[in-house]
Amino acid sequence: MPDAPRPYDPACIFCRIGRGEAPASIVYRDADVIAFMDIRPVNPGHVLVVPIAHAGSLADLAEHDGQPMFSAAQRLAGAVRRSGARCDGVNLYLADGVAAGQEVFHVHLHVLPRFAGDGIRLAAFGRQQSPSHHAASWMGLRTQSAGRLAPRRI
Amino acid sequence: MPDAPRPYDPACIFCRIGRGEAPASIVYRDADVIAFMDIRPVNPGHVLVVPIAHAGSLADLAEHDGQPMFSAAQRLAGAVRRSGARCDGVNLYLADGVAAGQEVFHVHLHVLPRFAGDGIRLAAFGRQQSPSHHAASWMGLRTQSAGRLAPRRI
Repeated sequence: MPDAPRPYDPACIFCRIGRGEAPASIVYRDADVIAFMDIRPVNPGHVLVVPIAHAGSLADLAEHDGQPMFSAAQRLAGAVRRSGARCDGVNLYLADGVAAGQEVFHVHLHVLPRFAGDGIRLAAFGRQQSPSHHAASWMGLRTQSAGRLAPRRI
Repeated sequence: MPDAPRPYDPACIFCRIGRGEAPASIVYRDADVIAFMDIRPVNPGHVLVVPIAHAGSLADLAEHDGQPMFSAAQRLAGAVRRSGARCDGVNLYLADGVAAGQEVFHVHLHVLPRFAGDGIRLAAFGRQQSPSHHAASWMGLRTQSAGRLAPRRI
């Protein structure tokens, strides 16, 4: 249990795993994050890294929870490569929102071992957009990012 | 230019963009990271977030470069949602190694706007592995992670 109160949702399966109230095949835990095997692994060795504090989306995730999640995933990528899992490469993958494929509404970062011929690919990756779309997106993003991307603490 | 020397590879296109020596449609920059439009966008608004310091792979990436990359991507996800790009969700995506789809060997995190019916999916995601594979992966990972996942500074 953490020393300080953290956001917790008793209806959230990942919150319950974080408190030891629901079972999981845990591979790593520290004060900020927990990592366990995905129950629907795409390849053997597929791990989820989860902040212990509840955050349903990236917009709700404090930087002091997101940064340890990323660093743990980075270290777990190395652990997967050293483990017995077949692993010539690793994808880190996060889905934010239903349209992005998010299914559990507690932020989580997939650590997915990859090997040549594993049959996995991000379909449509590499699809070309028109230059006008590209320019419009750039202008929209520059407007939105100007002065609005400073680090924040929630 | 950074105040202190950083790892830099003059043959690396992302290092050159970070120094302003190669062109890019830049949307964000701070002391640690630079973000610009992907030149092969999957959807309009597709951004790459790149540490300014060269690191070819996750194994070479210092935590003090990876954490700002993740936080910038998190904030850019919000910026993309606020921009004119069609965006009901966001995927963060990182490929580490050829087998994972890495094409530029300077670590980068994709910020990919998503919307229902955009035709993108991670094929084979949700494919079920056998329980025996799952258990073997878990044991292998527990062995590898025990005492080997402490934070490190490069």
